[in-house]
Amino acid sequence: MREFELLRHIYDANAGLGDDITIPPGDDMAMIRLAGRELLAAIDQVIDGRHVRLATTPLAIVGRKAITRSLSDIAAMAARPVGALVAVVLPPDFGAERAEALFDAMRATAAEYDCPLIGGDIAFHADATHPLTCSVTVLAEPVNGRAITRAGAEADDVVYVTGALGGAVLEDGLGKHLTFEPRIPEAIELAGALGPRLHAMIDLSDGLGRDASHIADCSGVRIEIDAARIPCTAGVDWRAAVGGGEDYELLFTAGGDVPAQLAGGLAVTAIGRVSPRRGEGGPLVIIRDGNEIITGDELGWQHES
Amino acid sequence: MREFELLRHIYDANAGLGDDITIPPGDDMAMIRLAGRELLAAIDQVIDGRHVRLATTPLAIVGRKAITRSLSDIAAMAARPVGALVAVVLPPDFGAERAEALFDAMRATAAEYDCPLIGGDIAFHADATHPLTCSVTVLAEPVNGRAITRAGAEADDVVYVTGALGGAVLEDGLGKHLTFEPRIPEAIELAGALGPRLHAMIDLSDGLGRDASHIADCSGVRIEIDAARIPCTAGVDWRAAVGGGEDYELLFTAGGDVPAQLAGGLAVTAIGRVSPRRGEGGPLVIIRDGNEIITGDELGWQHES
Repeated sequence: MREFELLRHIYDANAGLGDDITIPPGDDMAMIRLAGRELLAAIDQVIDGRHVRLATTPLAIVGRKAITRSLSDIAAMAARPVGALVAVVLPPDFGAERAEALFDAMRATAAEYDCPLIGGDIAFHADATHPLTCSVTVLAEPVNGRAITRAGAEADDVVYVTGALGGAVLEDGLGKHLTFEPRIPEAIELAGALGPRLHAMIDLSDGLGRDASHIADCSGVRIEIDAARIPCTAGVDWRAAVGGGEDYELLFTAGGDVPAQLAGGLAVTAIGRVSPRRGEGGPLVIIRDGNEIITGDELGWQHES
Repeated sequence: MREFELLRHIYDANAGLGDDITIPPGDDMAMIRLAGRELLAAIDQVIDGRHVRLATTPLAIVGRKAITRSLSDIAAMAARPVGALVAVVLPPDFGAERAEALFDAMRATAAEYDCPLIGGDIAFHADATHPLTCSVTVLAEPVNGRAITRAGAEADDVVYVTGALGGAVLEDGLGKHLTFEPRIPEAIELAGALGPRLHAMIDLSDGLGRDASHIADCSGVRIEIDAARIPCTAGVDWRAAVGGGEDYELLFTAGGDVPAQLAGGLAVTAIGRVSPRRGEGGPLVIIRDGNEIITGDELGWQHES
């Protein structure tokens, strides 16, 4: 069993949720209406041996990633952080100084993005071989009352990504996946500049292929990506950029003009287009030299944890 | 290092939080002001081998406890649930059917308390010996705009508990700690009946001795508990009731009359009083036959996880 199947089982129960859940589980964040005001919430986690390697990664970087991974979900909704809650399970021999350093890094990172740490829990594993686990819940508010979901892509939209993709997780476990900047200001800038023309957005955590498929599935459309247009990290093949994960850049679809660069200097690249979903076709095709050479089903990439 | 010391390090940073954090980390839940409305949030976790034993406990009960443990924090604030987010780490061989059963139990339990599951994350451990971990964030709203904290106890208050204490965790790992009902309706009833006379409240997770000390410390008062008045579970010695944990009953202090029984039939027992903190005394004394026989410092009980 993989994560996605289990999540699908969970989302099947969304039908039973009340009207106050304005974005049900299954998007980057859920949204709930509280007395007319909306609040976004999401939970994510970082586990030693899966998302980080404690043995080779400084604690400050581990704590940073625990927070930025969840902040990236806020960016995906073009929302503004409200606060974060952190639950950590430590090996019994972790040590006071290291535990404090981990929390200090989490707090400092959260504060950097105006997302105060408002809650925490700490527990200890029974056995020293059990891995460090950090679970982080983030709360956010939609900007101007609107959160951008995965479900709004429309036929004839252009598909865009920010930054460069691929190679985020190096062989030794290090790489951009540890040091990326959640694209919160950039997402808010995009939402402001495009207004209702910004139709759908996701952060690239599972990888371009899979995350584009998420948008296509949630929106009931097909996405075609032009392999030659993918802004690959230097030295990274476009196939690796499609299949790799943890870029934490923004993938979005929009109608009309889109700035080629955002205020902080981040590039925005058009990589494809949205078309109506055909009966037999998959959610995603990658096109190279005019040929459909790979479909979503063939990407062979599965978010492992 | 123990949990409490590390939490103290974390709460030391509360001074840097903004004015919108109306109850900072360190109470059962934090509270944050969003455009004039207040939202409560807390995170807690349940780990195989620490809080539950998967080997001997039905999955439905494990899932139930993961949720009720966090709901009990909502009861402690006399608040109303808004929603829950769950992050689970499973051993790699956990199996689809069991994973679904776990989530179904969590969702059903949350729904039972009008606390819809609005977010979830699933990850798999790298090794089959690594333990199941469930982290649960709960969101809540104060009832009539007021949340009951640990910090409001006043000299001459009477100290009360609901239900019976002690023996919640049996030798085989089973017991009331798995099947308790979070006292949310009872807490809301108390807050309604007592109004501003309900001064301070906590849920008994760490044990009467330690949780009474939390109220005394947060309120800057001393609490005296009469050992003979503690409503012990049948067959449980008062010392075990003071030192034991995971009763998940309510401990509160109030002025004036308090009902001896709540609408659902739950007993409320006066067990002590609040007095001013003396210079040299500890936060808590247990009195038996008129003698101070044990102080908080001597309880020798430490929340292990």
